[in-house]
Amino acid sequence: MSKLYVRGFSLSLDGFGAGPDQSVENPLGVNGIELHRWALATQAFHEMQGKDGGETGIDDDFVRRGFENMGAWILGRNMFGPVRGPWPDESWKGWWGDNPPYHVPVYVLTHHARSPLVMDGGTTFHFVTDGIESALRLAKDAAHGKDVRLGGGAATIREYLSARLIDEMHLAMAPVFLGKGESLFAGLDLPALGYACTDRVSTPAATHLIVTKQAN
Amino acid sequence: MSKLYVRGFSLSLDGFGAGPDQSVENPLGVNGIELHRWALATQAFHEMQGKDGGETGIDDDFVRRGFENMGAWILGRNMFGPVRGPWPDESWKGWWGDNPPYHVPVYVLTHHARSPLVMDGGTTFHFVTDGIESALRLAKDAAHGKDVRLGGGAATIREYLSARLIDEMHLAMAPVFLGKGESLFAGLDLPALGYACTDRVSTPAATHLIVTKQAN
Repeated sequence: MSKLYVRGFSLSLDGFGAGPDQSVENPLGVNGIELHRWALATQAFHEMQGKDGGETGIDDDFVRRGFENMGAWILGRNMFGPVRGPWPDESWKGWWGDNPPYHVPVYVLTHHARSPLVMDGGTTFHFVTDGIESALRLAKDAAHGKDVRLGGGAATIREYLSARLIDEMHLAMAPVFLGKGESLFAGLDLPALGYACTDRVSTPAATHLIVTKQAN
Repeated sequence: MSKLYVRGFSLSLDGFGAGPDQSVENPLGVNGIELHRWALATQAFHEMQGKDGGETGIDDDFVRRGFENMGAWILGRNMFGPVRGPWPDESWKGWWGDNPPYHVPVYVLTHHARSPLVMDGGTTFHFVTDGIESALRLAKDAAHGKDVRLGGGAATIREYLSARLIDEMHLAMAPVFLGKGESLFAGLDLPALGYACTDRVSTPAATHLIVTKQAN
């Protein structure tokens, strides 16, 4: 059965999934890049950028696993771009250039309707205006039995957690403090929602946590 | 020169240093005991309880190091006991019985004056009513060149961090979520205060973090 996974979501020791003040210059918020060093150094990430080199091992394995058997993605709007409010035009096409790294249908949560956006390499961005459950239904249909990956950001993951719709998360806690930004955990009672940390492995670059929804 | 250290302060993945609703039955708050499993299992903790057995290794080393060269301690009042407001009488003498594990002068922060309390084994509890800087001054004087350990709880550590008075912290992040309780980081911008994670080592029971105040 198709599952909803969070994979490779980076956060700081103080629980921030992105820095503050996202902008075109700072897609991850101020200092947000610090959270992602563990992934940027991997061979898998180098390959996605069409580059040689990069490190193999546990961090690399986690990045690769995050793309296995994914039939569709869901993204919060801020993860798709810095535009807020109604779309002024069709010019913003995501942070990733003409050939985004998804290669499957991607459902973008927004309050503002927009036509689907067909990109190179198999990625199509669909804009969903009727909520997280609708986006999940559409994504699972499109995935044809494969799994669905929820990319982020923090606010979107918090919504799906609150609704107990996420089956499992892989979080990568970088050994840095951000001090401010988008908190993943604030006000969220994960044990009460039925989530527990079920596995954990540390590398020099990150502590990888597996957080699993427990049976009712 | 005498330094102010936090040592072996346990917290959850979601940043709580204790569970909610501290009471005589739950000195660490509800489920707070889950944060301390890494320490309870060690040989050092067994020894403190006059028991044989317990695990050696990294976790044990951290517990032992937390007692090395400490000439005085500082505790928040809630770490000393569950009594709130004016002391009704002198009957509460801490959570630890007649022979507490400190064996040096301990400065307890409170708004309510009380006479010093001499315990067995070298521990004397002094009650300080004029603030955190006064407590630190008294503790450093009493330490005679040795270091001072700030025991907690979370609120007290937050006060000392905000004043940049802590030189270094060892935090032990247990692989559990609490969901609610006493947050160590909420609203605290550690990088802005000049603190950074400078070392990190993981065991099956905890991720040990060293957090150091950077030079100005």
